[in-house]
Amino acid sequence: MKQFTFILCLFIFLNTFGQSDADVMEKIYSTALNKGKSYEWLDYLSNQIGGRLSGSLNAERAVEYTKAELDLLGLDKVWLQPVMVPRWVRGAPEYAYIETAPGKTTTVNICALGGSIATPGGGVKANIIEVKSIEEVSQLGRAAIEGKIVFFNRPMQADLIHTFEAYGGCVDQRGSGAKEAAKYGAVGVIVRSMNLRLDDFPHTGGMSYGDLPSSQYIPAAAISTNDAELLSNMLQLDKNIKFFFRQNCQQLKDVQSYNVIGEITGSEFPNEYIIVGGHLDSWDLGDGAHDDGAGCVQSMEVLRLLKETGIKPKRSIRVVLFMNEENGLRGGKKYAEVAKQKGERHIFALESDSGGFTPRGFSFDCSDAVFNKVLGWRSLFKPYLIHYFEKGGSGADIGPLKDENIVLAGLRPDSQRYFDYHHASNDTFDAVNKRELELGAATMTSLVYLFDKYGTTTISNTETIKD
Amino acid sequence: MKQFTFILCLFIFLNTFGQSDADVMEKIYSTALNKGKSYEWLDYLSNQIGGRLSGSLNAERAVEYTKAELDLLGLDKVWLQPVMVPRWVRGAPEYAYIETAPGKTTTVNICALGGSIATPGGGVKANIIEVKSIEEVSQLGRAAIEGKIVFFNRPMQADLIHTFEAYGGCVDQRGSGAKEAAKYGAVGVIVRSMNLRLDDFPHTGGMSYGDLPSSQYIPAAAISTNDAELLSNMLQLDKNIKFFFRQNCQQLKDVQSYNVIGEITGSEFPNEYIIVGGHLDSWDLGDGAHDDGAGCVQSMEVLRLLKETGIKPKRSIRVVLFMNEENGLRGGKKYAEVAKQKGERHIFALESDSGGFTPRGFSFDCSDAVFNKVLGWRSLFKPYLIHYFEKGGSGADIGPLKDENIVLAGLRPDSQRYFDYHHASNDTFDAVNKRELELGAATMTSLVYLFDKYGTTTISNTETIKD
Repeated sequence: MKQFTFILCLFIFLNTFGQSDADVMEKIYSTALNKGKSYEWLDYLSNQIGGRLSGSLNAERAVEYTKAELDLLGLDKVWLQPVMVPRWVRGAPEYAYIETAPGKTTTVNICALGGSIATPGGGVKANIIEVKSIEEVSQLGRAAIEGKIVFFNRPMQADLIHTFEAYGGCVDQRGSGAKEAAKYGAVGVIVRSMNLRLDDFPHTGGMSYGDLPSSQYIPAAAISTNDAELLSNMLQLDKNIKFFFRQNCQQLKDVQSYNVIGEITGSEFPNEYIIVGGHLDSWDLGDGAHDDGAGCVQSMEVLRLLKETGIKPKRSIRVVLFMNEENGLRGGKKYAEVAKQKGERHIFALESDSGGFTPRGFSFDCSDAVFNKVLGWRSLFKPYLIHYFEKGGSGADIGPLKDENIVLAGLRPDSQRYFDYHHASNDTFDAVNKRELELGAATMTSLVYLFDKYGTTTISNTETIKD
Repeated sequence: MKQFTFILCLFIFLNTFGQSDADVMEKIYSTALNKGKSYEWLDYLSNQIGGRLSGSLNAERAVEYTKAELDLLGLDKVWLQPVMVPRWVRGAPEYAYIETAPGKTTTVNICALGGSIATPGGGVKANIIEVKSIEEVSQLGRAAIEGKIVFFNRPMQADLIHTFEAYGGCVDQRGSGAKEAAKYGAVGVIVRSMNLRLDDFPHTGGMSYGDLPSSQYIPAAAISTNDAELLSNMLQLDKNIKFFFRQNCQQLKDVQSYNVIGEITGSEFPNEYIIVGGHLDSWDLGDGAHDDGAGCVQSMEVLRLLKETGIKPKRSIRVVLFMNEENGLRGGKKYAEVAKQKGERHIFALESDSGGFTPRGFSFDCSDAVFNKVLGWRSLFKPYLIHYFEKGGSGADIGPLKDENIVLAGLRPDSQRYFDYHHASNDTFDAVNKRELELGAATMTSLVYLFDKYGTTTISNTETIKD
């Protein structure tokens, strides 16, 4: 009888309190894959709303939609955090051609870079000079550059396995090309799209004139990789060809917008915060499905999965959908500013902003001690083929939270196809696979679950290892 | 002076013979990503040739094309290995509808299963009964089944991370559903497509009547997952709805075809063979881009990359493009039969037949001792995010080579999207990403390089570990 009672008690204990971390994670993954919501949310964000550039009507519709969806989840709190955002508008579609002789033209695919000024109403037509870097512009100097359009054509490096490294090695052309070329009298800038494959989509993205006086601003546009190759080949045949482009984008006044926030309040340490997020704004050309609709719906799904699987977090878990990552980071800065004002103790922040592809793991911005603790959890992720645990950057929006107390992390999905879609008109819902998206959400939820359970102090590490 | 001579000698040695395995692999990956040929070959196979069902004109064109391309690579030998293959033809497009009342019909998307017989010329119309398994058919028995069409509707299990496991758990419905249902007097079989997502594509694939007398054969077709859901819902409303389908496929006589083989003859052990391959035939609905155009061009690329990077293999390395994996495996059987007849000592065979997606690693069918040796190479693959090294199956075509002396392996790419395209009309070139395909080829080449250098005996393991 005694033995029976013991077994009964053990049975009840194991079923009530004794779920192993592996069991919990199995439940998280299976719920995400069998009864996920993220794909349905992404469908709406992409196909019913579409591109959500800061300050646009679509961005406001996305705020309303995601708040309403969070309201339905039965969280403890859902609110909008006001933030003023810049408003840049593209205007009418851009137009560009290469002119080899008067009247002999070839149309090419371009798009204005975000933040660029318009060309004069009639467009700009000038000789065009190809360079591979910003340094080359200063080496060539005013004699070679003045009165010309500068064509930045350094491709992303194909043999870097981490495509974000290839992006990092090229994006200065887009970000600072116009500012630097303007100093030498250029009249416009055309930048090869940040795209690893050859296709016809121009990829937009942020650029800045820095501290240049506004009288010296010159218009800047991206050209598709196929047309960059074409232009380069034509320039090799004839240095005197001309390039024409016309765009009528403009920077308007800042407008009111919002970060969208939902919270499950912690049962033991309600004043310790864990946040998970993505950015709700996107560029305007596509539907922002991968960048970063995916990260938003995955972050929303983290809180929904916690509730759905019956996990009651000890700490307060927030989903934050940041506004204006693409051209200002105002949402990320505002969230950190308010958190600081309120003295909220944030212990962990996780961002998903690398596309909705099959998750491979995470990169962590934290101390070695915490990182070693995380490595103790690694084997739990093995059944889900999550293998990448490295120290590194996290995400732009959560960056402003950085201090010595917080652990920052970024979801790292497979990155091979990301730049096929990034900031281009093909970043649409059909480019996202349901399972890949859901696996990302489950992987994020699992990490949030572990950080909530074990915290970020390194003493309790042994608790985990025994699992 | 002595010291200088020593340093000079060391320098020459390191540059000539002393490339570390890591250096060689870096060169392999960088060549694959910067100057790869696999994508161009796949473009031709998919877009200029298309679906390559055994015995079809397209299959013969694929034999000619790939042989001609191998001839251009400057290999030591290229030849065709004759093999007789079955020839099944689909005929005119299939047609099917659900009839809820006389004249009230809803068209649905089906395709005949490979190997199925035709319906009578006017089609089959009958009541339809939904089952979830073959066992359910025998439980229901003749009274419930006779005169009806049996609808096998067990979906692939979404929460299996390895999608091939989900496929394995379902494909008996396609392979044996007709054979079993016929025993109880069914007049036809409709099988839910082996597809993890909901869409409109029916997915074909092999089926067999086993030892059933041909007089009892019944026609079998696959239905798209969307239409399987529709049909199931309609059956819940009314068990008496009818289903109609018409198909006029047929099995013709066997015809002559070929495996396509190319070889770099080994410099030290020419009589030890390493083979790498995929299958050249495909189903007829799409262009066989992932299944298995990708595996073929990756395997061709392995030999090209070995030459391009200046690796002179010690052992003989063969690429084998097998004919007739999909509906007979005749090519795989023939290759093994001839190898045995000639007494060729095959030490390692690698197949790529899981799609051209980002490679994650390999599964190995080998002894524990060899597997431990392979695990010693694992760290070399880490920079390329190749992490999956497990014991398991290899590939259908290389299976017949199995004996105690050979190590078999299969490339394991990310499998999440594979069944979106498998055996369906959307298995086309645009579904394959260039970088993902090339990374697979480089990963295969690296493993072939290591097996060639270190062999499969387990004594030389230490050679590797020092790298």
